[in-house]
Amino acid sequence: MMIDWTIAPITASISILVAIYLYFYINKQSAGSEKMQEISNAIQEGAQAFLKVEFKYLAVFVAVMAVILTVVPLVADIGLNSLMGVAFVFGAICSAVAGVLGMTVALKANVRSANAAKEGLNKAFPIAFRGGAVMGLAVVGLALLGLSAVYYFTQDAEIVLGFSFGASAMALFAKIGGGIYTKTADVGADLVGKVEHNIPEDDPRNPGVIADNVGDNVGDVAGMGADLFDSYVASIVAVMTLGGAEKLVEYFSGSPSQISFVHVPLVFAGLGVIASILGVAMVRVGKKGNPGKALNIGTYLTCIIFGLMTLGATLYLDINIGAWAAAVIGLVGGVVIGITTDFFTSIDKFPVIKTAEASQTGAAVNIITGFSYGLLSMFPALLGIAFASIGAYSVAEFFMQENGVAVVGAGVYGIGMAAVGMLSIVGMIVAGDAFGPISDNAGGIAEQAGLDEEVLDITASLDAAGNTSKAITKGFAIGAAGLTVIALLAAFQEIVIKYAPEGTEIVFDLMNPMVLTGALIGIAIPAVFSAMVMLSVGKNAFTMIEEIRRQFREIPGLLEGKEGVKADYASCVNIATKGALKELIPPSVLSIAVTLAVGFIGGIEALGGYLAGSIFSGLIFALLMSNAGGLWDNAKKYVEAGAFGGKGSETHKAAVVGDTVGDPFKDTAGPSLNTLITVMSLVASVFAPAIVMLTMA
Amino acid sequence: MMIDWTIAPITASISILVAIYLYFYINKQSAGSEKMQEISNAIQEGAQAFLKVEFKYLAVFVAVMAVILTVVPLVADIGLNSLMGVAFVFGAICSAVAGVLGMTVALKANVRSANAAKEGLNKAFPIAFRGGAVMGLAVVGLALLGLSAVYYFTQDAEIVLGFSFGASAMALFAKIGGGIYTKTADVGADLVGKVEHNIPEDDPRNPGVIADNVGDNVGDVAGMGADLFDSYVASIVAVMTLGGAEKLVEYFSGSPSQISFVHVPLVFAGLGVIASILGVAMVRVGKKGNPGKALNIGTYLTCIIFGLMTLGATLYLDINIGAWAAAVIGLVGGVVIGITTDFFTSIDKFPVIKTAEASQTGAAVNIITGFSYGLLSMFPALLGIAFASIGAYSVAEFFMQENGVAVVGAGVYGIGMAAVGMLSIVGMIVAGDAFGPISDNAGGIAEQAGLDEEVLDITASLDAAGNTSKAITKGFAIGAAGLTVIALLAAFQEIVIKYAPEGTEIVFDLMNPMVLTGALIGIAIPAVFSAMVMLSVGKNAFTMIEEIRRQFREIPGLLEGKEGVKADYASCVNIATKGALKELIPPSVLSIAVTLAVGFIGGIEALGGYLAGSIFSGLIFALLMSNAGGLWDNAKKYVEAGAFGGKGSETHKAAVVGDTVGDPFKDTAGPSLNTLITVMSLVASVFAPAIVMLTMA
Repeated sequence: MMIDWTIAPITASISILVAIYLYFYINKQSAGSEKMQEISNAIQEGAQAFLKVEFKYLAVFVAVMAVILTVVPLVADIGLNSLMGVAFVFGAICSAVAGVLGMTVALKANVRSANAAKEGLNKAFPIAFRGGAVMGLAVVGLALLGLSAVYYFTQDAEIVLGFSFGASAMALFAKIGGGIYTKTADVGADLVGKVEHNIPEDDPRNPGVIADNVGDNVGDVAGMGADLFDSYVASIVAVMTLGGAEKLVEYFSGSPSQISFVHVPLVFAGLGVIASILGVAMVRVGKKGNPGKALNIGTYLTCIIFGLMTLGATLYLDINIGAWAAAVIGLVGGVVIGITTDFFTSIDKFPVIKTAEASQTGAAVNIITGFSYGLLSMFPALLGIAFASIGAYSVAEFFMQENGVAVVGAGVYGIGMAAVGMLSIVGMIVAGDAFGPISDNAGGIAEQAGLDEEVLDITASLDAAGNTSKAITKGFAIGAAGLTVIALLAAFQEIVIKYAPEGTEIVFDLMNPMVLTGALIGIAIPAVFSAMVMLSVGKNAFTMIEEIRRQFREIPGLLEGKEGVKADYASCVNIATKGALKELIPPSVLSIAVTLAVGFIGGIEALGGYLAGSIFSGLIFALLMSNAGGLWDNAKKYVEAGAFGGKGSETHKAAVVGDTVGDPFKDTAGPSLNTLITVMSLVASVFAPAIVMLTMA
Repeated sequence: MMIDWTIAPITASISILVAIYLYFYINKQSAGSEKMQEISNAIQEGAQAFLKVEFKYLAVFVAVMAVILTVVPLVADIGLNSLMGVAFVFGAICSAVAGVLGMTVALKANVRSANAAKEGLNKAFPIAFRGGAVMGLAVVGLALLGLSAVYYFTQDAEIVLGFSFGASAMALFAKIGGGIYTKTADVGADLVGKVEHNIPEDDPRNPGVIADNVGDNVGDVAGMGADLFDSYVASIVAVMTLGGAEKLVEYFSGSPSQISFVHVPLVFAGLGVIASILGVAMVRVGKKGNPGKALNIGTYLTCIIFGLMTLGATLYLDINIGAWAAAVIGLVGGVVIGITTDFFTSIDKFPVIKTAEASQTGAAVNIITGFSYGLLSMFPALLGIAFASIGAYSVAEFFMQENGVAVVGAGVYGIGMAAVGMLSIVGMIVAGDAFGPISDNAGGIAEQAGLDEEVLDITASLDAAGNTSKAITKGFAIGAAGLTVIALLAAFQEIVIKYAPEGTEIVFDLMNPMVLTGALIGIAIPAVFSAMVMLSVGKNAFTMIEEIRRQFREIPGLLEGKEGVKADYASCVNIATKGALKELIPPSVLSIAVTLAVGFIGGIEALGGYLAGSIFSGLIFALLMSNAGGLWDNAKKYVEAGAFGGKGSETHKAAVVGDTVGDPFKDTAGPSLNTLITVMSLVASVFAPAIVMLTMA
């Protein structure tokens, strides 16, 4: 049997077909009572309204970038043609389509899962999970198919970088916009509803409730999908670029392998898609089963299948075993990072319990304690990334030798393969991750539609399972982003070497003042970016709070729940949408503009240092904010479960402060940082030829 | 007139003499009523008790390190002798003596300043300021004299590194121990006294009040003095090492200069001492004057005097003008960093006002807003450090050329000189900084002794002035530490080159996986360290709270302020002391042990990356924590001044939460980070020869 890189588009197509099949499976389930459908429609409308405006902004941005991408190479007089701009637009579109598809099905799955919960957990679970799986399989399918298409037509990995950049730009918009939206709605609805009027979460009287539900979808489903789409594509492209290094190409031509180093990541990704599909198929839960466990077992099985399939392919096709070993190291690293992250945010482990305990002394001590454990939580994750990268590097150098000397470029190629390995099972990861907000929404709809307590219990247990799987997949996402951006940095260097005058040495020496200056500026960017998006949440939440208060004040009978009186949900949706989309422009522009400024003014070395600095600082804040946020959330839940005075006590109030601080940490700023550093790295790589021409001539 | 490097010990001696003169000036002032003296004595006893135990711990630590420093070179079979151990011990002792002297006089100045406040501001101010000046002049005097003595006897800059390491170890102990102590006492006294029993700050009924006053001295006076002693010495030693680079020595021998590059930092530091003495002498304030302004004018004048004196010396002695220009760039950079830091923490600028405003929506929004501005505040400071280093590098390369090519090592030498420039006026900086806690204590004593409202107003205005000058000097300290550790990293590289086999290239290339792995571990250390010290504060504060509650409960008449009933101050002092000193061991050991582990296991390149990573992360967290902490503090004060509902309102309560979170940020973790990264760099440099021998053989 002849296997080559085209296995990637083939399995990608299969993935899309499976996603479509699952879509129809979900669609044919009952959407429940009229009331339920009405709520579901309101959420759908809100989400579509958001996407419509978001895409309008995005279209302008994409058009401007596409023009720049086409013009700059002409100005700098380099051989890249306007295909770069086309690839960029195509990347943004593919990511957007995956997002829309995933969200559409999530919005169908939530109400259907809520309805099926009437018949038991084993009916509700598959609907929610398969809803997530549509997103997961659509993401990997469209990503890999789109990437393959660009590569097929251009045969040029550099043009594929343009595709990746397009996907990243989309992800940045989706992440920031969705992140600001979801927290604006969440904070607004909670502060007025729960705190001021003491009405329960997801109560239909609350004017912000629909906006809150919409937020789960645009933030958690669409945003997260775009994020992993972006990392997935970036890791593959980075390795394709690294595989094209001169010495590796030479080494390949003297080896028995049938797959060049440029194509290995495509083959592995293709097999990863199959592993994800099988993994998705194997996730099952009985009537009294544990859905969280089922999800985790699915993830581990996917890892094992991937490892075995790629081993088989490696042996069969005589691929260098170092590439396989590096990918497996990456995958194991991802699991380890996920598990340690889980430790710091789990409700039954001591960091959460100690933070809950600290809430007894007040909100301030809760904040200090949670923040401190958040700081500590970085250590294992950073060690994991460090060891995965050095392990992958060493193993690649060990197996790729000529005359007893490692081939130049082998080591960084190994780091890239580790990223590909970590991200190979992204279909399964996204499926498990999207399951969370779907179940969350299912619970919300059940509550608003006034379903039985029993049904609510089932949707609550689904929601809890979503949180468990989320902790592990979130660790995965950050770890993968870390390795990916390191690979992108290497790819950037490779491109610079290609365009620089013959014989120029490109070294990012920390004692070179340009590198150092770049690094000092680079470490500031993720901090500034985080501050901007968090301040946006504060600003928008303020407007939202005013509006919700106004409605309670001005609509007679609303607060009392008088029959027939309805809140004006649309105006809250509108506020969240407008605010989020207005606020996403400055941080997006910042991340691209400063990167270009450093490159064109400071040159290649400053840019290399800048990227490295942004990676370091980005990882720090991503880990700190995601983990501290998750920890505060669970500390509050721990108190609510009855500890240290339980719900309503002073301790609980203190724990709520921590949870509220954690919200923009973990749902707005933290997860956007992955995307930020990927975008910065891709901007640098895409513009590297022009920067080389203009600064090194 | 013949001038050589011995100007350093000469002016250092003058500085010590002036300090002693000022000491006697203060000592002969009246210490006020018996009641005042009694309070003052209690604070003195507490502080001495703390120092006694601290020195016991320190002695053990110093002894162990001294043995290691003596044994390791023998094991590794390198030419360094046991002088390294002796220099280390001497460095620790000099720093300790400066700390004790400074604290002793601060403890005399506070009560005398409080007493003089009865006669007006123009009587109270000079006592408080000169009290600080004793500390400042003792620090620079002992630092420079000690350093010169070691150099005089050994003529070996490497041995002087041992002296610097000793001073750093002392600083680390003083900073962590003092930082934990001061916040344990502060939080404990405030939470039970102010919040639970609603009695004012510094009320003598509060059993924690003396511990709180002691904390100001051991944390702010002794800790900060040791910190700047440490940076000051480290910057000079780093440049001496860099000045010994082969090519610079050659270049010097062909130049007309009378002062070698090794000696230039000593000459500049010596002149800086004179500038500081003159600056101190020029700080004056009238009866209705503005003490904050007087302090700032003194600082600026010192800068100008330093710039002019060093310019004169440079021209007179034919020192390369590049060295002077680099120093001036550093000094200007320090001022700029100080001013921008001031902007983010000033009570009349929008970050503070916006944060105060955000408190209206509750504690969580106050935290998010303050934290966000803290993140933003990094940017100008990091830009300042970046531009100062590249500016100094470029100017040094521009002026140090041979045949049109910059001399190898000139650029990093310039960066080092920028650090020396920034730290040259450290005498004045410490004077202004120590003034703060002295005035703070003066206010506390006046309150406890029941002095008139008018007197309290004067001590309050002194306190406010202390906060103003503190903001600028804190920015200075962080900026200087940043440049110093960059210079230390270069010095580390220089030492490695010296010991490595001939022809080995030592490059800290970010794409080298060892460098990268080291960097990923390095960025985690400041975070883990911060978490450890902050969790310690939480733990100790808890014990303190229990004890204060117990006393109020068990001592009849205490809360009512019955005549003759006294709180058991000593037991609170004891809790703070024991807790702080027990908790300082783990983070201290961590910082040294991990550094050595990375070096001996990972080798030189991993260690280089590790140091760079720790610098990046250390700067990030130092700036974030110091600035956010200061900002929250002032946001609370802004509300207390009557805005948004004023004292006692819900807004105020929310602002108090931010202030309490900020306390360990700005007074425990944040300022310890400077010292941490200096210690890590010095450990690396001191052990570099052994690491080279054992890992590169």
